[in-house]
Amino acid sequence: MNQYTGALGRMIDELGRMPGIGPKTAQRLAFHLLRQDSAAVSRLAQALVEAKQKIGYCSVCFSLSEQETCAVCRDPRRDRSLICVVEEPNDVFSLERTRIYSGLYHVLMGKLSPLDGIGPDDLKVAELLRRLQDPGVKELIIATNPDVEGEATALYLGRLIKPLGTKVTRLASGLPAGGNLEYADDVTLSRALGGRVVL
Amino acid sequence: MNQYTGALGRMIDELGRMPGIGPKTAQRLAFHLLRQDSAAVSRLAQALVEAKQKIGYCSVCFSLSEQETCAVCRDPRRDRSLICVVEEPNDVFSLERTRIYSGLYHVLMGKLSPLDGIGPDDLKVAELLRRLQDPGVKELIIATNPDVEGEATALYLGRLIKPLGTKVTRLASGLPAGGNLEYADDVTLSRALGGRVVL
Repeated sequence: MNQYTGALGRMIDELGRMPGIGPKTAQRLAFHLLRQDSAAVSRLAQALVEAKQKIGYCSVCFSLSEQETCAVCRDPRRDRSLICVVEEPNDVFSLERTRIYSGLYHVLMGKLSPLDGIGPDDLKVAELLRRLQDPGVKELIIATNPDVEGEATALYLGRLIKPLGTKVTRLASGLPAGGNLEYADDVTLSRALGGRVVL
Repeated sequence: MNQYTGALGRMIDELGRMPGIGPKTAQRLAFHLLRQDSAAVSRLAQALVEAKQKIGYCSVCFSLSEQETCAVCRDPRRDRSLICVVEEPNDVFSLERTRIYSGLYHVLMGKLSPLDGIGPDDLKVAELLRRLQDPGVKELIIATNPDVEGEATALYLGRLIKPLGTKVTRLASGLPAGGNLEYADDVTLSRALGGRVVL
């Protein structure tokens, strides 16, 4: 709750619902928006509503899309023998930013998390298995996050899919570029050692 | 610019226009909003538009108000012999939060800033002088921020208004509550010394 009432109070409440926006930041944003002209505020409001209305999930890979299938799935230049499995739609954008990957994606819409009651049935695993029935798919790259739940999800998928005959790989784990041995945590350093490559 | 196109790109652009919201935060907020249901996003958008539509400035003190005059100016229990001058409408809320002040306010809508070309004519100074013509006003408390421009504004108002016979005071400057001599800057410490009070 805040001390503000009426329209200002509702505005601050709603802004404060967003992640990482505390009460103070919500106030600051609200006062900023009140200083803007009406057109600017309407533009922001409309952009939010329009994005929510127009953007859905690709029916094939569950990445964000304004159409039935996403731009990646529709692109004929994409390598259809590769599928990269990620947790969330925004992970697709992170990988696209590298401009190195030319295959397709599959968004799980989460990760295994027994504590939160999230099992394989809550993720898009059945849909992934259906895609793997296409004999054109040669490799599955598992790009879940390298945290406990992401690793568990990767392990689970690996065990599930390897018997089907598809090659399953996992993103390399190790020192980040520009990183420093001194500041690397033990797990990262252990993985960097374990995954060392021949020069 | 960001790598996102269409409705998602516009949403991230608009969110990123807000102060303190960088491109990464804008992306995070956008993906968060896309995970919410449509009703939640509409509620946020509507709260923004409605606040902007409904909230204007009090015709007397220029504080924020949904009516012609603000709740403070309308309240008959307020001490009409006291006017507290602040820079921005949000400063009124900060002072109200103390629950100690029972007088009226006057929002300057800025502060003197020659470098930005902001002089007395750009502030609500003429409106303040008009309010001071009421002989019931006994004291003017200047509560501009204790930074260079705020101090200059306070000095200017003091020189302008003292000759009119109204008592003019300034908020005390000194060590903040819970503060520490060791970490106080020189100017704050000098002011705390200069403004020392008898116990």
